[in-house]
Amino acid sequence: MNANALSTQLDFARAGKVTPQMESVARAEGRAVEFIREGVAAGRIVIPANHGHKSLQPMGIGRELKTKLNANIGTSPTSSCIAKELEKLDAAVKYGADTVMDLSTGDHLEETRRSIVEHSTVPIGTVPIYELVARSGQGDDDEIDFSREAVMAVIRDQAAQGVDYMTMHCGIRPSMLPAARRRKLRIVSRGGALIARYMARTGKDNPYFEYFDDILAVCHEYDITISLGDGLRPGCLADASDEAQFAELAQLGELALRAQQAGVQVMIEGPGHIPLDQVEMNMRLERQLCHDAPFYVLGPVTMDCAPGYDHITSAIGAAVGAWHGAAMLCYVTPKEHIGLPNAEDVHQGVIAYKIAAHVADIAKHVPHAMDQDNAISDARADFDWNRQFELALDPEKARSMREEALRERNQDGSTTNHEHFCTMCGAKFCSLRVSKDI
Amino acid sequence: MNANALSTQLDFARAGKVTPQMESVARAEGRAVEFIREGVAAGRIVIPANHGHKSLQPMGIGRELKTKLNANIGTSPTSSCIAKELEKLDAAVKYGADTVMDLSTGDHLEETRRSIVEHSTVPIGTVPIYELVARSGQGDDDEIDFSREAVMAVIRDQAAQGVDYMTMHCGIRPSMLPAARRRKLRIVSRGGALIARYMARTGKDNPYFEYFDDILAVCHEYDITISLGDGLRPGCLADASDEAQFAELAQLGELALRAQQAGVQVMIEGPGHIPLDQVEMNMRLERQLCHDAPFYVLGPVTMDCAPGYDHITSAIGAAVGAWHGAAMLCYVTPKEHIGLPNAEDVHQGVIAYKIAAHVADIAKHVPHAMDQDNAISDARADFDWNRQFELALDPEKARSMREEALRERNQDGSTTNHEHFCTMCGAKFCSLRVSKDI
Repeated sequence: MNANALSTQLDFARAGKVTPQMESVARAEGRAVEFIREGVAAGRIVIPANHGHKSLQPMGIGRELKTKLNANIGTSPTSSCIAKELEKLDAAVKYGADTVMDLSTGDHLEETRRSIVEHSTVPIGTVPIYELVARSGQGDDDEIDFSREAVMAVIRDQAAQGVDYMTMHCGIRPSMLPAARRRKLRIVSRGGALIARYMARTGKDNPYFEYFDDILAVCHEYDITISLGDGLRPGCLADASDEAQFAELAQLGELALRAQQAGVQVMIEGPGHIPLDQVEMNMRLERQLCHDAPFYVLGPVTMDCAPGYDHITSAIGAAVGAWHGAAMLCYVTPKEHIGLPNAEDVHQGVIAYKIAAHVADIAKHVPHAMDQDNAISDARADFDWNRQFELALDPEKARSMREEALRERNQDGSTTNHEHFCTMCGAKFCSLRVSKDI
Repeated sequence: MNANALSTQLDFARAGKVTPQMESVARAEGRAVEFIREGVAAGRIVIPANHGHKSLQPMGIGRELKTKLNANIGTSPTSSCIAKELEKLDAAVKYGADTVMDLSTGDHLEETRRSIVEHSTVPIGTVPIYELVARSGQGDDDEIDFSREAVMAVIRDQAAQGVDYMTMHCGIRPSMLPAARRRKLRIVSRGGALIARYMARTGKDNPYFEYFDDILAVCHEYDITISLGDGLRPGCLADASDEAQFAELAQLGELALRAQQAGVQVMIEGPGHIPLDQVEMNMRLERQLCHDAPFYVLGPVTMDCAPGYDHITSAIGAAVGAWHGAAMLCYVTPKEHIGLPNAEDVHQGVIAYKIAAHVADIAKHVPHAMDQDNAISDARADFDWNRQFELALDPEKARSMREEALRERNQDGSTTNHEHFCTMCGAKFCSLRVSKDI
């Protein structure tokens, strides 16, 4: 392919050309197509859409658009099954994930990913270093082949499979390791830790930084959006907003500029574990250091000591983060810090993040963000239970909860209901009924 | 009792006298007793402690202290059983509720309340109008006897039973009804709606406003903290921060001053459903209008259309609210808007609010707020799973989740584990293990 030919959404946008993908995003967002094109041209909006991902329905990511959410799925070396991954994919998309990352590290990586891409109507992201590790050997401590040939081969193979965006930890550099060593939890990013260990052992620089121009060439050819990974994201509150984190963020800002100059779409990954009072500052700093490239944040988790509930501890940080500018939220499931999530964990994680995204969209006054809320409030005023369930984020859950409440109330264990009112107050205390009469 | 005698914590604090309750609060908060006494004297801190509640372990409520959380329990006319309520009380206290409100509206109100007060080591709150309604008749639309005798009799009887704080909707006035009528959901507070209907039907003022001096006298005698109820709290985002809500808040501020002048401890109840970007403004306005009396907020719920998950939609608002000054959070369970919560709903609600309170305490830099987080992070670095579970907010949940993950991984369905690492990454990809080697 001619390197000068228009290939990516960014190329077309800069050339003043509107693509079908931009039109599709404009429709989905209820915004003018020119608003989308301008945002893509400026690097404020990305549309991850590999030329080869045929089943894709394109979507846009940017702080001015609706907040997006990503769900991670994928096998682990201790737990692998393609059917289970497709089940997780379906659960994630059903409940509203806008993108899905295949973070598989188990066996059969290529087949798993192929099945996921073919099945998926949403953009698929990957972390290519996981496959590099798998190709390097099966032992826990096998040296990883970080040669240019090996690193680029994985990226090229995944690109050809139709992957829409790739997380690469290009910004972690040897100069940052002393600050990482001083941390309570050092490095909690898997990719970041593997690259740091390589740099520490060999004295060499980060291969993904060294090969960045080669990476840009592949990403330009297929229109893969680079998601610049935060290898030094803090893994606990004590490590938040420290020298290591912000040194890497500044480096990611420089790389984002190089990517944009090469016509490659780029977003920035962010923390991590952050106290609530530091979330807004983190969002502002990214925007400033990274030229307004979309910020794609994990949580942030706002406390450390609630394992089993980190979908909630992080939904709090995610809502505040998205309100203050995060464009996409990477979900956290209840199993975070404990084990590999199953389909029900994926369900719970996606719902918690759908909530965070929706709350943020209302707070940042996205057009029509409150329509569904106003409609369900009208249904409440009308005691229209079926309509309330239809408008609920998770209709099955709301319905089954009402049946549970009725079953617990009725002497015979049935779910019969002869009245408008809920089992919380009953007719006599029903404030909605009583206040019709004021 | 001599009206001039020192009776309440507020009386003693103003007289420069330290009580055993203040000493106990100072110990629990890790603050100087003089800091507590000054806060109580200024009305910034309340210590709900009815002279007759013998089993009570006193606690303090104020924005400078650790954020507190309240769990509501109680029967409804459609679902009543004392044993079940005690089960909910135990669940609430076990998982960390700082106070419990008995909102029973079913049968056997007095026995239910007596059992709850006797059982409880935490302050118990009530809403006396519910008993007034029950005494007025069993029909759904029986006129309520709002005579001075009837209203005061309920308050006196509950006071004598040892109730520590009472929610009374003293601030809703006839002049506020036109603004309430313009709302999508009018009035969602049960007490507020019943009083509004009475005012609309009779043209009279709010009885709880009219009898306020009598109420103060009873509360002074027993040292009951008045929780000035927000009868006009918004029930959906569309009604948030409106004329009705803030007119009532200003009225509550005047009443708070009267209570404090009478030596009666007082806190203010707050919204409700509030968009995330209006939460901080609501907290500031209360502080300004209500003379820094502790703000006791329900949620706030930050979106309307997630029935089944309102513990999460409201934990987001609660965390941000407490960070910006709310002193106590009234929990919301997953069954909110659907039906009466059962013990498991109480459990989920309390945990979500324990999270919100903890996240806020870290954000507002309460001394030692992060100690448990730092300890669990050290346990993570050490792969010390037992210690992680011990330090978890809900140890049983964390433990059972790890067992589930191991069971799903192991071929034989066992929970055996031969390694340090979680099933999320396994040894090879364990960033904590890998980054020990940088």
